[in-house]
Amino acid sequence: MSHSDHLDDLTLEEKASLTSGADFWTTKAIDRAGIPSIMMTDGPHGVRKQREGNDHIGLADSVPTTCFPPAVALGSSWDPELVRRVGVALGEEAKAENVGVLLGPGINIKRSPLCGRNFEYFSEDPLVSGVMGSALVAGLQSQGVGASLKHFAANNQETDRLRVSADVDERPLREIYLRAFQRVVTEQQPWTVMCSYNRINGVYASENPWLLTTVLRDEWGYDGLVVSDWGAVNDRVAGVAAGLDLEMPSSGGRTDAQIVAAVRAGDLDEAHVTTAARRALQLVDRVVANADPNATYDADAHHALAREAAARSIVLLRNEGGLLPLDPAAPNRIAVVGEFARTPRYQGAGSSLINPTRLDNALGELRVIAGDRVSFAAGFTTDGSDDAGLLDEAVSTAAAADVVVLFLGLPAEEESEGFDREHIELPAPQTAVLEAVLAANPNVVVVLSNGGVVRTSGWQERVPAIVEGWLLGQAGGGAVADVLFGTVNPSGRLTETIPLRLEDSPSHLSFPGEFGHVRYGEGIFVGYRGFDASSTAVAFPFGHGLSYTTFEYRDLSVVERDGGLRVTVTVANTGSRDGREVVQVYTALPGSTVVRAPHALAGFAIADVPAGGAGTVTIDIARDELAYFHPQAAQWTVEAGTYVVSVGASSRDFRLEATIDIAGDDLDVPLAGDSTIAEWLAHPRGGDLLRSALDSGGGSGLAGMLTDPETAKMLGSMPLERIAAFPGSPIDESSLPGLVEAARG
Amino acid sequence: MSHSDHLDDLTLEEKASLTSGADFWTTKAIDRAGIPSIMMTDGPHGVRKQREGNDHIGLADSVPTTCFPPAVALGSSWDPELVRRVGVALGEEAKAENVGVLLGPGINIKRSPLCGRNFEYFSEDPLVSGVMGSALVAGLQSQGVGASLKHFAANNQETDRLRVSADVDERPLREIYLRAFQRVVTEQQPWTVMCSYNRINGVYASENPWLLTTVLRDEWGYDGLVVSDWGAVNDRVAGVAAGLDLEMPSSGGRTDAQIVAAVRAGDLDEAHVTTAARRALQLVDRVVANADPNATYDADAHHALAREAAARSIVLLRNEGGLLPLDPAAPNRIAVVGEFARTPRYQGAGSSLINPTRLDNALGELRVIAGDRVSFAAGFTTDGSDDAGLLDEAVSTAAAADVVVLFLGLPAEEESEGFDREHIELPAPQTAVLEAVLAANPNVVVVLSNGGVVRTSGWQERVPAIVEGWLLGQAGGGAVADVLFGTVNPSGRLTETIPLRLEDSPSHLSFPGEFGHVRYGEGIFVGYRGFDASSTAVAFPFGHGLSYTTFEYRDLSVVERDGGLRVTVTVANTGSRDGREVVQVYTALPGSTVVRAPHALAGFAIADVPAGGAGTVTIDIARDELAYFHPQAAQWTVEAGTYVVSVGASSRDFRLEATIDIAGDDLDVPLAGDSTIAEWLAHPRGGDLLRSALDSGGGSGLAGMLTDPETAKMLGSMPLERIAAFPGSPIDESSLPGLVEAARG
Repeated sequence: MSHSDHLDDLTLEEKASLTSGADFWTTKAIDRAGIPSIMMTDGPHGVRKQREGNDHIGLADSVPTTCFPPAVALGSSWDPELVRRVGVALGEEAKAENVGVLLGPGINIKRSPLCGRNFEYFSEDPLVSGVMGSALVAGLQSQGVGASLKHFAANNQETDRLRVSADVDERPLREIYLRAFQRVVTEQQPWTVMCSYNRINGVYASENPWLLTTVLRDEWGYDGLVVSDWGAVNDRVAGVAAGLDLEMPSSGGRTDAQIVAAVRAGDLDEAHVTTAARRALQLVDRVVANADPNATYDADAHHALAREAAARSIVLLRNEGGLLPLDPAAPNRIAVVGEFARTPRYQGAGSSLINPTRLDNALGELRVIAGDRVSFAAGFTTDGSDDAGLLDEAVSTAAAADVVVLFLGLPAEEESEGFDREHIELPAPQTAVLEAVLAANPNVVVVLSNGGVVRTSGWQERVPAIVEGWLLGQAGGGAVADVLFGTVNPSGRLTETIPLRLEDSPSHLSFPGEFGHVRYGEGIFVGYRGFDASSTAVAFPFGHGLSYTTFEYRDLSVVERDGGLRVTVTVANTGSRDGREVVQVYTALPGSTVVRAPHALAGFAIADVPAGGAGTVTIDIARDELAYFHPQAAQWTVEAGTYVVSVGASSRDFRLEATIDIAGDDLDVPLAGDSTIAEWLAHPRGGDLLRSALDSGGGSGLAGMLTDPETAKMLGSMPLERIAAFPGSPIDESSLPGLVEAARG
Repeated sequence: MSHSDHLDDLTLEEKASLTSGADFWTTKAIDRAGIPSIMMTDGPHGVRKQREGNDHIGLADSVPTTCFPPAVALGSSWDPELVRRVGVALGEEAKAENVGVLLGPGINIKRSPLCGRNFEYFSEDPLVSGVMGSALVAGLQSQGVGASLKHFAANNQETDRLRVSADVDERPLREIYLRAFQRVVTEQQPWTVMCSYNRINGVYASENPWLLTTVLRDEWGYDGLVVSDWGAVNDRVAGVAAGLDLEMPSSGGRTDAQIVAAVRAGDLDEAHVTTAARRALQLVDRVVANADPNATYDADAHHALAREAAARSIVLLRNEGGLLPLDPAAPNRIAVVGEFARTPRYQGAGSSLINPTRLDNALGELRVIAGDRVSFAAGFTTDGSDDAGLLDEAVSTAAAADVVVLFLGLPAEEESEGFDREHIELPAPQTAVLEAVLAANPNVVVVLSNGGVVRTSGWQERVPAIVEGWLLGQAGGGAVADVLFGTVNPSGRLTETIPLRLEDSPSHLSFPGEFGHVRYGEGIFVGYRGFDASSTAVAFPFGHGLSYTTFEYRDLSVVERDGGLRVTVTVANTGSRDGREVVQVYTALPGSTVVRAPHALAGFAIADVPAGGAGTVTIDIARDELAYFHPQAAQWTVEAGTYVVSVGASSRDFRLEATIDIAGDDLDVPLAGDSTIAEWLAHPRGGDLLRSALDSGGGSGLAGMLTDPETAKMLGSMPLERIAAFPGSPIDESSLPGLVEAARG
């Protein structure tokens, strides 16, 4: 018998007690009914289980677990199978720690490079975010550990995050900010969804019935539990009615009592409380059924997986003159410069901070391969303080070497949950080292360690090789060595645009808002969609990433399949190393009648191709990926037309292109009195009807004017009913209803 | 006895009859009460009085009147006294035509260069729009003719203009889109204000009580009549209640009957109808009191004024190598190329189209001065058709001359009321002529004729001189000759930015909207405010314009005066010609706590300075010009701080700078439970209160964390009440109200 079956036996007070936590991390038990408590812990890229004696806000020391690469890195793999395996490992660790739900993944869209929590998110693109998030949930839940899909929704900044209203129009909200959630929910049914702190169009996520019930449950069919982000509850009673099942952490019983009182006062339907309690018990059932007190995990194997994942996450941004890979067998002297090589930045601050089981650093791992051919100079401090002696040492170290590997990055204190960045610059002491080192030795490989993008323009053209190392988790040091020496042929691709300037970012003029509101003024033009729509040059485009080999694209085929597309393309490895290409498919609809990005990612696949070989990949694109959300019809809609399907290696590196005619969805948006003259004239029946009404109406003036193209253009925007209301109009106002009726056919 | 005194004698039906027009252009008389009809006509840059036998939509031929330069040109004079004189002339012509109200000026903000009606508006800046609009109203109404300030409000595009909702947040709405209206209303009390077609945040302007009553009357103290734009009424009964006094044109009695029925049914307070009728009678009183059946005007003098105004409207964008002015006495051969020299584009299409009393063209006027030294080639057709023969002729004409004056511009059909442009390019046949002529003779002066800005990047650097001639009205041909030959030393300045690319325009990603909504996503960053905020290079900045002489700025003094600023600066004419400088004052508040443009125009003045002389100008800047609109306090607010006052010749050409400390307004936004930790700590009393509460609360954890800067930064955004709700919080939730009370002092 499951605990859910006890529901009918529970009192209102007991049911209410199930709707909030017992303490910081656990739900309430009901001993009388034999209902146990379950534990949740922070994630998402590791299990952050607090040690005993925790503090009041849940930030204290935690038990050691594997720190996998945070989402910023993992997403760059574009490899859902790899991400799934990381999810499996996370599930094993959670289980071994008796954790029933791991709070992750975070799949919010990177609206601005400044968001302090971008390192916890996958992408500026909803497809990448959704596919990666879905893979992580699949892996995690395959181990009987629940995911908590977060932060639902439109939580795209840290500034004023507990109060700010994300003011977003419906198309961007649906197409950009909810889209990844929709995918993960419908594909994986995560055990829990975590509502965010912020408000959405004025209503707190934690008490937003449209978000938590209409969209999440009624439209997407979600059947799991909605938990609050920690401290996200504003009005608990409103939250229960809206669909927030579980408040975390504990309110000390205060809000349970509010719920009971509201029911007694007739202000809250008890059915809402029962529903929330049922979902809580269903979650308990799931956790209990999968619990295993004897579970363990192989920390070495997980460290190895962390290294594999980190290596796949690295993006080779630039590699001129073949400076990379370094030859492990060559006798060249390698200068490693930069404190980050010795003291890695491998994760971000805040609730996701993991106490790692071990920690590699790149300097040590490079020396494992190249031994004492590797010299080192710290170059700068990681706290941003100036130290001229370090710079001088870096220059002399660089000058004495054949090649310099220069580790630059963001200081830890610049990016964290809780606040946003104010710029995307590297610290000045680091760029000073870069310039000095370049002057001393032009053979420089820059390795970046950063959770949010940094500006590379100004120096990127002068540096032969740039490796974007993001935050790579506890095994990142080895992964960097693997890529630098070619043990791993890099295959990471950018999931966000690196702009030339922060000011070019489409959200720049409306981030992060003020007075409790942030207006998503760029609409759907987030990330590359915006850069492309304004034809703005970028430092490195979305989807970009190099390999140590080269690929050619051949034989593109695009056919219709189940209303969507089946894209087939052959990728040939034309270089001398085995390699992996991330094949990206973008769609466009030139001449679309609605606002659209010039190109939007519609699918992608990985092609592992041996040197000299070729492989064919097939990418199925569901019809939904071609749809836009029609706010008046309130439905996802595929517009009829000739779609352009572009296949290539980045959003600005299309290799092959095909077109395909797609039939549109039926849209029931009939003509009405306030339809414009232009809309009437363009309508299959309305045009003739209007013209004959004008002829018979004796209004030679207006009818004549409509035959003059210039005047017709000016009058075209007039609703017919306004024309009809004009004195002496040839359209009699009383005839309008009949005309509308006739136009409906 | 005035007609207003009859109000009490009128029946409900009679009062209702006064709330809509008798026909297209006149109000209803009530013969029984001796109330006459009055006439309104389209404006704003001329009196468009339709001839008898008009059509059904008011676009037919009109009686000849002077076509003054449209607002796009007139605004570029930055000369309110000149604009006032044009207003006087318009008033004289209206009076002579028995017109009681002239429908203008249009003072909408140029949000996008694409707006089809930009030629009817003054500027992208609310101060320039307001000052120019105010001057025109002052002149017009000084003659006893009413103005109709339009289009109120947020009517910044033609696309879907009769239905579209301008979705604008309150700060941009107040600070950008309503600001000029506020100035003109409070300074001039225009006899009428015309509500616009569109909706504002979902509510039609014609039935928007917030707009027409709360803001316009309650806040600004407006006592005149609100008239609908022609055909702007959606729900007449709602409009009466909202403050729309007069519907135009006639509804054939239909809406009068609706009003009567609504009053009878108790759905509309008769007081609203009485108020509307009273305002209609007050307007009749004003018109009747000022009518003069014997009024005439001097068409020759007005033509001369039109020429003077046009010459002052011309903006010399570029003049390298002193190509301009042309020497009238030199024996050089002048090739005039371009059909616009012979067939001028001098006004835009739509309701503002004037039937001019006469029409000059530049070719003829240039020949008046230079006789047969002036050759001519049409170069291209104005209908956009290609004609290779014309191009060849242009090249040979140019090659045979010493200097080429090349007239380029927008075809008439590309800009009009009723639709927006889709690009800002000159027609390809014209740029082909430009390139061919440049190749044949590099001494090219380009004269532009255009209502909306055109792209000049790509060729502007290769053309020695560029004259922005806008649409200059019926005497523009002579004005161009005056400027080219130096009879008039040009002094026009751009009132809108000319961007390098359309895509750079801050509104680009959200113009013109779709599905009945346009989101003003750029917020306050309209025009130069946006270009500056994103540090985007432009072709020619706001405020730019050259002279045939040069100016130096000296002796800047900025002192506080009446809470605002008094700016004094000396301008020296360091060249050899008498000239006029437009001295521009911009303010900035570095480190402001609210979103702001980097610099905003706060004042300007004209300095006419003889060659070798100097003049001192004093510019008073009201305290209001330093204020922003605080949406929570719902008040205009001056922030305390050190303001930077920059004085110069354009928004990107500051010559002198001073700083001044300004005390801030008192703002009553007290601390509350949902104020964040950071807000509490920053508060003069709240900080200490919170710290001692934390100390006494025994919450060593939290109190300690707040002393750690990194953790404090992360926790800073948490509302105190959320912290208090956490388990074990050192702040007891029950103590919060006391804390809030204590912080209020």
